[in-house]
Amino acid sequence: MYSICYRSPLSCNSKESNKKMNSVKTEEDIGSIGLVKEQFATICEPPDELILDSGRKLGPITIAYETYGELNEARDNVILLLHPLSMDHHAAGRYAPDDRKPGWWDNFVGPGKAFDTSRFFVICSNCIGGCRGSTGPSSINPATGKPWGATFPVITIRDMVNAQKRLLEKLGIDKLFCVAGGSMGGMQALQWTVSYPDKVVAAIALATTWVHSAQNIALNEVGRQAIVADPNWNQGDYYGGESPRRGLALARMVGHISYLSDKSMHEKFGRKLQDRDEISFDLLTDFQVESYLQYQGLSFTQRFDANSYLYISKALDYFDLSRGHNSLASALRDVQARFLVLSFSSDWLYPPYQSREVVSAQKRGGKQVSYCEIQSDYGHDAFLLEGEQETPLIRDFLRHVREETHA
Amino acid sequence: MYSICYRSPLSCNSKESNKKMNSVKTEEDIGSIGLVKEQFATICEPPDELILDSGRKLGPITIAYETYGELNEARDNVILLLHPLSMDHHAAGRYAPDDRKPGWWDNFVGPGKAFDTSRFFVICSNCIGGCRGSTGPSSINPATGKPWGATFPVITIRDMVNAQKRLLEKLGIDKLFCVAGGSMGGMQALQWTVSYPDKVVAAIALATTWVHSAQNIALNEVGRQAIVADPNWNQGDYYGGESPRRGLALARMVGHISYLSDKSMHEKFGRKLQDRDEISFDLLTDFQVESYLQYQGLSFTQRFDANSYLYISKALDYFDLSRGHNSLASALRDVQARFLVLSFSSDWLYPPYQSREVVSAQKRGGKQVSYCEIQSDYGHDAFLLEGEQETPLIRDFLRHVREETHA
Repeated sequence: MYSICYRSPLSCNSKESNKKMNSVKTEEDIGSIGLVKEQFATICEPPDELILDSGRKLGPITIAYETYGELNEARDNVILLLHPLSMDHHAAGRYAPDDRKPGWWDNFVGPGKAFDTSRFFVICSNCIGGCRGSTGPSSINPATGKPWGATFPVITIRDMVNAQKRLLEKLGIDKLFCVAGGSMGGMQALQWTVSYPDKVVAAIALATTWVHSAQNIALNEVGRQAIVADPNWNQGDYYGGESPRRGLALARMVGHISYLSDKSMHEKFGRKLQDRDEISFDLLTDFQVESYLQYQGLSFTQRFDANSYLYISKALDYFDLSRGHNSLASALRDVQARFLVLSFSSDWLYPPYQSREVVSAQKRGGKQVSYCEIQSDYGHDAFLLEGEQETPLIRDFLRHVREETHA
Repeated sequence: MYSICYRSPLSCNSKESNKKMNSVKTEEDIGSIGLVKEQFATICEPPDELILDSGRKLGPITIAYETYGELNEARDNVILLLHPLSMDHHAAGRYAPDDRKPGWWDNFVGPGKAFDTSRFFVICSNCIGGCRGSTGPSSINPATGKPWGATFPVITIRDMVNAQKRLLEKLGIDKLFCVAGGSMGGMQALQWTVSYPDKVVAAIALATTWVHSAQNIALNEVGRQAIVADPNWNQGDYYGGESPRRGLALARMVGHISYLSDKSMHEKFGRKLQDRDEISFDLLTDFQVESYLQYQGLSFTQRFDANSYLYISKALDYFDLSRGHNSLASALRDVQARFLVLSFSSDWLYPPYQSREVVSAQKRGGKQVSYCEIQSDYGHDAFLLEGEQETPLIRDFLRHVREETHA
């Protein structure tokens, strides 16, 4: 199973599977997962700490996670969703009926959706190093009784995956039918297939890369320098005081620009002015895009911790799936999972060529891989927004793998 | 005269002109302009101040400039070079024999070079708003006896051009054979042809745009926010004290990333580590690209003023050649200058499509325009680095225009 398309992704599907897809669900069947509850698990308790890539030990570790759908008796219908940098374990549904927004990937997760909760038991866990419930730099270091801050150990994408593996063990789940994620989540999905080749049946990697490029590192470095240049950062020891929110806001602004495309910014903002008809001839904000970025930066500081940004961006920069191997192909040699790789034409953060390198390596290794470059003007964010194009591809891929592996 | 090429720019030239080009100069003829001296002129003295686009008046104004070559008797061999944001009037030659580096465009300016000083009288002036000798926010406000700081009037690309016009009047030069520049210099070149249509015979616009895009504005806004977030900025009033160098360094880091391409960063840095064989697993710099950016940021603060960065980046963001007109075509209607427009395939700051919009508008207006998209991996910086590809195009263009207008 190897296909490449550069136009409408529907052309990636055979006529037969299109027909199937169209007949599978009516609009009535497709809905929200409804109300959900976040859950917490404690893993890696001493003396069974997690051994990190750095050699340091971390434990006990709290993991925040959510689940959607039902685990079947065979325990073979589990999909693990992996979130991008600025998201968390709240992928779908609402905590309360009047929540303004559902989880970040709600359009993909629910009954009849791409990750169909009427068939699959979907788990989404918050990564370690984060600040949304899992252990990270804002957590209390049990040895000192104070927040870790910048003394928290540096973590990697592989460490995140190893922690997820321990969570699954705790939940009594031995094998994943699928790991799936976009951006940083896609890196984790790829890492899963390499770290635990016999534990993953299928992997879906969206808008991602197998190795952070020099440009990727450079963009993250600006964000890190903005945070550590903020006097409130105070060597990472700011909990209980003023946080380095201006530095974090700047980091987010840089990030946000890299998530959009030149064209999507042109279409969304162009040169429209903010609350005025004519340019002001002062140094204050004139353009809507300036206000928008400032707002994005500021609102991010209300839900994200600056130290977590440092640690997670560093994990991204360290990411190189071929680390410890001679090449990507060698790293992928033992992978058993079928791959679905989706890239997006206007994504300049993780451009399509990076996905194609994964696809080519898998193909050369005789592995099963489906690939689509989806035409989209949304830039990197496309993987969150092109549900209409992605859903049939994901749904068909999961069905094919299910049929093949249960034959 | 209208040509487009997407491959080797040499194919833009006819065989005949290639032959001519190759026979024009031997290596011995091509050399440095040698030692140069910066000069200063005072213009716009009250009551004849410069009326700015904002409506405010500015004067007296000091302009720093350099000249290379000799003004001929007819005074019709003048080329005005216009510098990009972070450069200045020192385009060519050295101030002293032991200067570590010559002017920023030395490979383009000198006897036998693209801007051949054995034929042309070349002037390069520092823009107003800058900090390298021309009046800007770090200059003394005559009304207060103190540096202007953030009370300096906001300026535009058109204001810069109007100041240059006044400088030329002072020098007794009525008409320009050519205006030429890259990036911000290219915007000024285009603005010259619109503001003074009967005063410019030819214009060369490299790696530039006719209007700052939402993405361009967004990148600049990050830089501005980094500067104003630095506590040392102090509302622009920092002269004599600590300057907001950390903020300015961040602004420069963002700018620098936008001047390079993904590919050039990959080739220059890849994932090479700085002074170590293995990743460090701490939050400090690991990668060469991080050290490089930090160095670029820091060294920029030693030669550039943070307030000037605010003002000049704002001038860039305000740039819209069609302002006050219905369209770009309408703005260009009265232009008499022949155009040479060069874009660079990997320039994502001012992508080739922005240049093509200028070319198309000129073509639709029945104007003379030559265009080449030069294949280069150097990103925006290509216009400074692809001398070998650019020189024959510039030299041929100037020769053709000279022949046509002196026929």
